[in-house]
Amino acid sequence: MKPTEGTLRLQTVEGDGLRFEAEFPSGRIVLDSGAGAVAPNPVHALLAAVAACEAMDVIGLMRKKRQAVTAYEVRMSGERAAEPPRRYTSMTLVHRLTGHGLEAAAVEDSLRLTVEKYCSVYHTIRPDVPITNRYELIEA
Amino acid sequence: MKPTEGTLRLQTVEGDGLRFEAEFPSGRIVLDSGAGAVAPNPVHALLAAVAACEAMDVIGLMRKKRQAVTAYEVRMSGERAAEPPRRYTSMTLVHRLTGHGLEAAAVEDSLRLTVEKYCSVYHTIRPDVPITNRYELIEA
Repeated sequence: MKPTEGTLRLQTVEGDGLRFEAEFPSGRIVLDSGAGAVAPNPVHALLAAVAACEAMDVIGLMRKKRQAVTAYEVRMSGERAAEPPRRYTSMTLVHRLTGHGLEAAAVEDSLRLTVEKYCSVYHTIRPDVPITNRYELIEA
Repeated sequence: MKPTEGTLRLQTVEGDGLRFEAEFPSGRIVLDSGAGAVAPNPVHALLAAVAACEAMDVIGLMRKKRQAVTAYEVRMSGERAAEPPRRYTSMTLVHRLTGHGLEAAAVEDSLRLTVEKYCSVYHTIRPDVPITNRYELIEA
């Protein structure tokens, strides 16, 4: 199978800046941890990767289930260890789906499938980092 | 300690699109897994998060060691499982540092410190996913 590949480059060569750009076949991600950062940092990117991986599965499954989703937002939150390495100790993802007559069973089933079966990023995270998924349904 | 927080939003509400935008206090990341994707996908973002987390530590340490780095590139590569969940099974990061008289011992020490002590993202990945770090030094 073809490996996943890309190139990361330091953009702030002079001074103390910590801005890098990652380039992949489909586009770029800028990451920044410096003073006055202009982009998310790698810890943000990791949280976004987990949330988006799940959300892509969920919206795909909801569409297959003929659920009329008109907006989908995930509130992402993570706690980290106080001492280095300041790894995540937990993540909480609240999936807020807006639509017409969305069914709780459809969302629950979609979330269950991404967590148990599909989400590549979720399953690359340490198993001792609890990832809590909740959902809210909003009538459009 | 303050949690890490952000909001992810579906941009492609109509049709089959899988484009999301993650918003954090310091900026945004667009992620896309749809047909004709215009941005990296979550699996790319995860690889970039690991590589950038390490590289930010390494460049910071190299600067402290008074190493004159004029360019820094990381070739990122990851293998994934063939069956769902298609989690990473390994990652390989080749750190290519260009500069004036860069010392191998300085790079080795910086890489060792990020892996053993500092990198928050590295330490949030499953311990059974081997992350191999290599380096190349190029005289400017």
